[in-house]
Amino acid sequence: MAQPGPSFQIVVVGAGFGGLCAATALARAPAHVTVIDERNYHLFQPLLYQVATAGLSPADIAAPIRGILSRQRNARVLLGRVLGIDTARRVVALRDRAIAYDALVVATGARHAYFGHEEWAAFAPGLKNIDDATKLRRKILTALERAEQETDAAAQRRFMTFVVVGGGATGVEMAGAIAELVKVALARDFRAINPAMSRIILVEAGPRLLPSFDQGLAAAAKTALEKLGVEVRLGQGVTRCEESGVALGEERIACATTVWAAGVMASPAAQWLGAEHDRAGRVVVAGDLTLPGHPEIFVIGDAALVRNAAGKALPGIATVAKQEGKYVARVLGARLAGAEAPPPFRYRDYGELATVGRNFAVVDFRWIKLRGRIAWFVWSCAHIYFLIGFRNRLAVAMDWLWAYLTFQRGARLITAGDEDEGGR
Amino acid sequence: MAQPGPSFQIVVVGAGFGGLCAATALARAPAHVTVIDERNYHLFQPLLYQVATAGLSPADIAAPIRGILSRQRNARVLLGRVLGIDTARRVVALRDRAIAYDALVVATGARHAYFGHEEWAAFAPGLKNIDDATKLRRKILTALERAEQETDAAAQRRFMTFVVVGGGATGVEMAGAIAELVKVALARDFRAINPAMSRIILVEAGPRLLPSFDQGLAAAAKTALEKLGVEVRLGQGVTRCEESGVALGEERIACATTVWAAGVMASPAAQWLGAEHDRAGRVVVAGDLTLPGHPEIFVIGDAALVRNAAGKALPGIATVAKQEGKYVARVLGARLAGAEAPPPFRYRDYGELATVGRNFAVVDFRWIKLRGRIAWFVWSCAHIYFLIGFRNRLAVAMDWLWAYLTFQRGARLITAGDEDEGGR
Repeated sequence: MAQPGPSFQIVVVGAGFGGLCAATALARAPAHVTVIDERNYHLFQPLLYQVATAGLSPADIAAPIRGILSRQRNARVLLGRVLGIDTARRVVALRDRAIAYDALVVATGARHAYFGHEEWAAFAPGLKNIDDATKLRRKILTALERAEQETDAAAQRRFMTFVVVGGGATGVEMAGAIAELVKVALARDFRAINPAMSRIILVEAGPRLLPSFDQGLAAAAKTALEKLGVEVRLGQGVTRCEESGVALGEERIACATTVWAAGVMASPAAQWLGAEHDRAGRVVVAGDLTLPGHPEIFVIGDAALVRNAAGKALPGIATVAKQEGKYVARVLGARLAGAEAPPPFRYRDYGELATVGRNFAVVDFRWIKLRGRIAWFVWSCAHIYFLIGFRNRLAVAMDWLWAYLTFQRGARLITAGDEDEGGR
Repeated sequence: MAQPGPSFQIVVVGAGFGGLCAATALARAPAHVTVIDERNYHLFQPLLYQVATAGLSPADIAAPIRGILSRQRNARVLLGRVLGIDTARRVVALRDRAIAYDALVVATGARHAYFGHEEWAAFAPGLKNIDDATKLRRKILTALERAEQETDAAAQRRFMTFVVVGGGATGVEMAGAIAELVKVALARDFRAINPAMSRIILVEAGPRLLPSFDQGLAAAAKTALEKLGVEVRLGQGVTRCEESGVALGEERIACATTVWAAGVMASPAAQWLGAEHDRAGRVVVAGDLTLPGHPEIFVIGDAALVRNAAGKALPGIATVAKQEGKYVARVLGARLAGAEAPPPFRYRDYGELATVGRNFAVVDFRWIKLRGRIAWFVWSCAHIYFLIGFRNRLAVAMDWLWAYLTFQRGARLITAGDEDEGGR
């Protein structure tokens, strides 16, 4: 590793929760920090489903990376897609240039996994970035528009059927939000169809929803979903996704909109690094989050496989990534200062939250468990608090307050079809 | 014309200011009102340039048509593209169906005109809908990203040069907003370039800016633009637009971003109707805004050529369209009630407003003329007041207040390239 000093180059790949936390925590380190991302914004991913269901606008939950780091003197931002990493020469390869590093933080996140059926992606898109979300929003709203114009009853039912695959927090929140959008917010908007008659089906292959939550909370979330009119199917795996609908074993469900929230796969970081990884593609890291044999390379967030004291892999959630990012900054800070290395990384589990629609949530703080309206309030406060940027906080708070009071959906726009060019 | 009565079918094509005003003003008419638009949202077009320059989010200035009309019992909304109108059979042809009418209101607006150089559209896009605006936003922000990564000085200058073609209100507001975005809001965000060194050039072929405003106000707007660092070129027409830049006669300006605000052409309404039209494609209408020989067909807004008492064509602005829409509703209301027809349409000119950046505007109320910060305040109030929907008003007010205080730009996202598919 190069001598620590003002010319020490730290490269952070990925400006999600992990990468950005690492970068900002290095603000006072005597080093240059280069943040590389292929998008120009940091995304508050836990609320992405709200953009897909027209509750929030993209700008409410995304902030330009340059803006976040504009006052951090030792940081610069590069917009670009990483094509590979040369660990011997210590350079990150972008399309048209190579960036040398003395220390590297790989925080490239995860993408969707279809268990070997990548062809399903076209019919059952997942939600990872703003473009995914606006596309899904367009798909949901367009399905109802087509139902309104459709004269064949079966085709109409298909357009009015929405399937969410995966019963984790993402799937639960998505199913609840679709139900509210379709059955409540849009209830009066159509003339030929009654959107309240739409079917929203949440499919989970495992025996219960929200596997990482307390059992009682998971059951309460199921009841709340059912109250919103969501059909919850447990113990049923999707065996096929296609244009016309999905198959659950023998059963066929005709639907025009399927949302994938069932599984993720780490980014190609393991391939770039030639590193050991688990079946989900996560890089196996040492106790200090470095790549074994490469003390200058850290892998964090969804791209890394980190185990807790009980040997269980930490989940792919924001709090894990943020704590890992801060930890890496501490390790690098200690090295740059010539101080002793901090003890191995240990995740502090503050708990988990999930919401079902506009006045029910479950909060599992481990030491206390909340459900219902009070949990929804806790959930709202927590999310608003953690959103980056004061402006966003205010805007989200207002959007929510307004949506809560009126059931209106301000962001209900069908925009930017790839197929949709030119004016009338 | 069919007998007036509860089965009387009024079809409104286009949900811009004119069409929507006509539709809502017909709320109590004993008739069915069908509003057809190819987009699902009504757009507050006067603020579209704010979306293109990252000051506002799309949802701040657009509202779903269904939402606006959801409580209007006699109205329904059809999403679809009109392919033609059969005036003999009295049907509007959509892609897959035909809608019969007893009375028809054509309010299809305008699109950009390139004076016979339609090939320029690819290099100098105009601004008519949300997708145009988000594309332009991406183009502006991406140009600076590329300048940041560029090592060749000439190429860097090209990426940092922005040309706005057309010195009417749209061009003036756009040039001011680009200057503020680039020179102020983004000033601290880059490391390799200084965005404040960007060139913003406003080109107007005529002898002055804002031709429909008072001469003194136009001169004040020019000075305000120059203070923001905009180069204003009067009496110079663009003679070529291409990938590398624009030509003004002999002079070549290398630029990566060109915005077209120079001319519009009415929608194909005249062709659909086989109607007489002027060079800009506007349908020549009678004093009651009907198509001569077709008392059941009205043409309003940017699609129509309506002259004032002095014989001058009314401008293509929101207030004209709105007054025409309301007038048509009055005419139809009188007919349905068997009452006397109202006198011919007369435009009430309340004046015009244009803004230059965040604290200068010109307001020409005809009887009083304002400029500077006070005019900006009037301009803000007027626009917030006229925005459809209370929620939007609040959100826009807050966004502006925040932008005004901090120069931050919340909506500074590069999203949804057509070329930009899939995640990292």
